[in-house]
Amino acid sequence: MRAAVMFGAGDVRVKEVPDARMTQQTDAVVRVTHAAICGSDLWRYRKLAPTPDGLRVGHEFIGVVEETGAHVTSVRRGDLVLAPFKWSDGTCEFCRAGLHCACLNGGFWGGELDGGQGEAVRVPQADGTLVPLPLEPDDPRLPAVLALSDVLCTGHHAARAARVGPGTTVAVVGDGAVGLCAVLAAARLGAERIIILGRHARRTELARRYGAVDVVQERGAEAVERIRELTGGHGAHAVLECVGTGAALRDALDMARPGGAVGYVGVPQDGEGVDVRRFYRRNVTLAGGVTPARAYAPELLPEVLSGRLDASAVFDRTVGIDGIPDGYKAMAEREALKVLIRP
Amino acid sequence: MRAAVMFGAGDVRVKEVPDARMTQQTDAVVRVTHAAICGSDLWRYRKLAPTPDGLRVGHEFIGVVEETGAHVTSVRRGDLVLAPFKWSDGTCEFCRAGLHCACLNGGFWGGELDGGQGEAVRVPQADGTLVPLPLEPDDPRLPAVLALSDVLCTGHHAARAARVGPGTTVAVVGDGAVGLCAVLAAARLGAERIIILGRHARRTELARRYGAVDVVQERGAEAVERIRELTGGHGAHAVLECVGTGAALRDALDMARPGGAVGYVGVPQDGEGVDVRRFYRRNVTLAGGVTPARAYAPELLPEVLSGRLDASAVFDRTVGIDGIPDGYKAMAEREALKVLIRP
Repeated sequence: MRAAVMFGAGDVRVKEVPDARMTQQTDAVVRVTHAAICGSDLWRYRKLAPTPDGLRVGHEFIGVVEETGAHVTSVRRGDLVLAPFKWSDGTCEFCRAGLHCACLNGGFWGGELDGGQGEAVRVPQADGTLVPLPLEPDDPRLPAVLALSDVLCTGHHAARAARVGPGTTVAVVGDGAVGLCAVLAAARLGAERIIILGRHARRTELARRYGAVDVVQERGAEAVERIRELTGGHGAHAVLECVGTGAALRDALDMARPGGAVGYVGVPQDGEGVDVRRFYRRNVTLAGGVTPARAYAPELLPEVLSGRLDASAVFDRTVGIDGIPDGYKAMAEREALKVLIRP
Repeated sequence: MRAAVMFGAGDVRVKEVPDARMTQQTDAVVRVTHAAICGSDLWRYRKLAPTPDGLRVGHEFIGVVEETGAHVTSVRRGDLVLAPFKWSDGTCEFCRAGLHCACLNGGFWGGELDGGQGEAVRVPQADGTLVPLPLEPDDPRLPAVLALSDVLCTGHHAARAARVGPGTTVAVVGDGAVGLCAVLAAARLGAERIIILGRHARRTELARRYGAVDVVQERGAEAVERIRELTGGHGAHAVLECVGTGAALRDALDMARPGGAVGYVGVPQDGEGVDVRRFYRRNVTLAGGVTPARAYAPELLPEVLSGRLDASAVFDRTVGIDGIPDGYKAMAEREALKVLIRP
């Protein structure tokens, strides 16, 4: 079969790889119908050291079940399924607590496993991992559903972690796909006012469609000052950090009002430390981390299917499997916001 | 009147100072009957640069109201009152939200104001600040009540911030007075199992009396390993950081299980950054900061009066006003845990 393989910074190729094959009775094999390139793929795309054997990539996909192991009971051949960006057994104490991303028997796609950016994937712990979809593979809602594999759930996680609810003022740091989904999630949770921080007109325009009222283009201390001006001098109740740099996190912490919270979901990149003295006096809570997409996806799916929660506009380019390298390039150069793959 | 004044590291003297005097109609003057030396006073005691004019010190006190301004309605001459470690107006949006420590018209004792370690104190915003006590000034429960001015509320804040409740395993980092109060608070909130991290036998013994079951003497990576061993391999649900150093906070973050929380109340001292990558994958929440003692004190007071919540044993030395310098020395040398002052 064919799949995308990353060999180093800026070097993604579509190659012939071994067919996806079951190795455990808890596995399934899924033929991919929809996949995506993630902002977090770009971090690696920008800095991966030369890797002669290559790394399989992609962690967001929808597909049709082709084969299941003897122990798999929740899906069967022919089912359309969504895979969240980590696989998980669904039965360990963390999965039972709704924190599937910390599953004791789970993990990330790629590496030793197939990635989502390919023709097919061996799915470990299929019962715990896959979310059955009551849809046909050509349903036009599938791009909106695909957002549940990561980006929409991640925006939702930021909003939940920052305790967004009715009456809260929300600042969203970052106008990438996660930031835009965070706007959508905050609006859904009843935020009173949403401010997006970003500089790209097309993206901030989409943020407005999703519920943002104000756009702040500044960064750093100027951005903090603007947020304070827009929030009666005290800062936002909830700040959703959707970038993943130390600078963005510091800005986010500075923007929170006393007693407020920062929900951070940007994968931390630079290891720049956060000085707790920045927010000790203001009692700002810092919460977030990896998103339990497997917990959120079934919760949000009905609203996605009804059209009330539609993040599909974050996909502004569609490629076939051969277009994956160009998709990476377009996202890295910020020509595309998020790329949909139809293998 | 006489009061303690700090002139530099290791240099506290009891001096004649101007009498406490009302300057606003919202003030009260309180004659101090009970005061204390705080672990946070020690930070300054260890590193204050030479200060020829001196700084007034002390932020925990109980006393008798001597005089009130025309606008003060909640207390009157002769009332026994508790002062929390910050003063606050009780009416601003943060006070109304229960976050009195962020009061828009409040502040810390000392500096331009009197400190609690003296014969009397001018109390700004008396209506918002003072908690009336239904007790006589010689009541034996007053040391237990005095703990509500800071240390017991601070332990409670750590426990609340870390979401301690029934079924939670709790690790308390630090066996100072705040750490011991955090044990007491965690036990009150229904913690299933409490582990104290400390090396001082007298203190960890008191922690056991307050509800701790295990004592961990290690620090750093060894302490983290011990906590994991004691918690089935995954870490504690709630970690209460009651020290205030970067090292203690890093240990605390490492000890939390996935989805757990760190409540930090140790005043951050060294500005050592926290690398978010340490806990991003585990979804650990970092919450806490300055304690809204004015909110917690009335909530906890009935249990203190009934004897169910008794932190008085943290006071293991009592001095008169002339003994304040020796009290600092004893605490700095860890000969005393916490010093009670009877001016």
